[in-house]
Amino acid sequence: MDKSRKGNLLIMRFSDGEDLLAVMKQALLDENIRSGIVLGGVGMVRNTGLSFYKGRGEYETVPVATESELCSLNGNVSRFEDDIIIHLHAVIGRPGGDALAGHLSAATVNMTAEVAVLVSQVELVRKEDPETGLKTLGFGQGG
Amino acid sequence: MDKSRKGNLLIMRFSDGEDLLAVMKQALLDENIRSGIVLGGVGMVRNTGLSFYKGRGEYETVPVATESELCSLNGNVSRFEDDIIIHLHAVIGRPGGDALAGHLSAATVNMTAEVAVLVSQVELVRKEDPETGLKTLGFGQGG
Amino acid sequence: MDKSRKGNLLIMRFSDGEDLLAVMKQALLDENIRSGIVLGGVGMVRNTGLSFYKGRGEYETVPVATESELCSLNGNVSRFEDDIIIHLHAVIGRPGGDALAGHLSAATVNMTAEVAVLVSQVELVRKEDPETGLKTLGFGQGG
Repeated sequence: MDKSRKGNLLIMRFSDGEDLLAVMKQALLDENIRSGIVLGGVGMVRNTGLSFYKGRGEYETVPVATESELCSLNGNVSRFEDDIIIHLHAVIGRPGGDALAGHLSAATVNMTAEVAVLVSQVELVRKEDPETGLKTLGFGQGG
Repeated sequence: MDKSRKGNLLIMRFSDGEDLLAVMKQALLDENIRSGIVLGGVGMVRNTGLSFYKGRGEYETVPVATESELCSLNGNVSRFEDDIIIHLHAVIGRPGGDALAGHLSAATVNMTAEVAVLVSQVELVRKEDPETGLKTLGFGQGG
Repeated sequence: MDKSRKGNLLIMRFSDGEDLLAVMKQALLDENIRSGIVLGGVGMVRNTGLSFYKGRGEYETVPVATESELCSLNGNVSRFEDDIIIHLHAVIGRPGGDALAGHLSAATVNMTAEVAVLVSQVELVRKEDPETGLKTLGFGQGG
């Protein structure tokens, strides 16, 4: 992963074989970014996990082992306790054109992927909701 | 719906059962935002309406009653006469992974949804085109 | 195509029959934008080409002749030698709701399309990788 930042814009270029979520998280920690909006992502992925919320903190995951185009990435970066959470939903395209979409729970970069993050001055903070098991998004005192 | 704004960035967190389009419109009016770019949206929706333009102001709508992941939200906020219009296209993921996409004409928030809007200094103004029935995007004198 | 720019935000409204990629490229050249992030795109397209990377610089393209909703546009603008490259991945919705996704290699605007680009202070520069045939994204000295 190679990255460059100017002001509130961080752009990352991932390399083949990288764990998209893990490497992106480390890049954000290195940049000390705890609140951000993912502006988009394009490239290719394999070993993708697309998850669907089933309630009470449980997800059902559809694994997509084969190479797919990463066509859309929406989501955000927020603080959770002493950690950060990258919350991403993705749309991927299969050879032939069929699109799959869901909560992105896993992805290995295939060849390359390019992701842009806007650093947010609105402070994003998650807290676990005991009723639903979701880590609900809220706003910090700076927000 | 809870929201926080800093400068030109507005972030909204919607709650279960809210009408996404109506509550978002009220939030934008409360913030006096009449021109904006929707940077993205993630969460879950139900009772979704995905519409396809058929010409002469008419849309054909595909209703999706069941719970789906909201995976992509693109679009903008503009002024139309004395009102504002939120123009959104969405991609949703069904359990199993299949993606549906279209003009978002309706959506009830399921559990939660998170949407980011960039306030635009380019003034966005729509005017109705009598020939097509479309409210065509244009730019104000400030733009 | 009509466009308006304020600071680092460029908004374009395309008209029926325009070649989305060619007209967008000319608009960016006219604005002297060589590095940018595509924040999103909505509207309708026809004669769409969705491509999938097969390795060694080769793509397999799925043509979609019929009118579709343009529901998501992710990607970026970068410099390549003396030229610029617009790298876009799109999600389109067919009547009935089915979504297709891929690298956007062609699209004719149907009725209208609206695209927003954030000018990037991070300098984006591509260089051809002789091994993969990909024009890999990198960052300029200004980045």
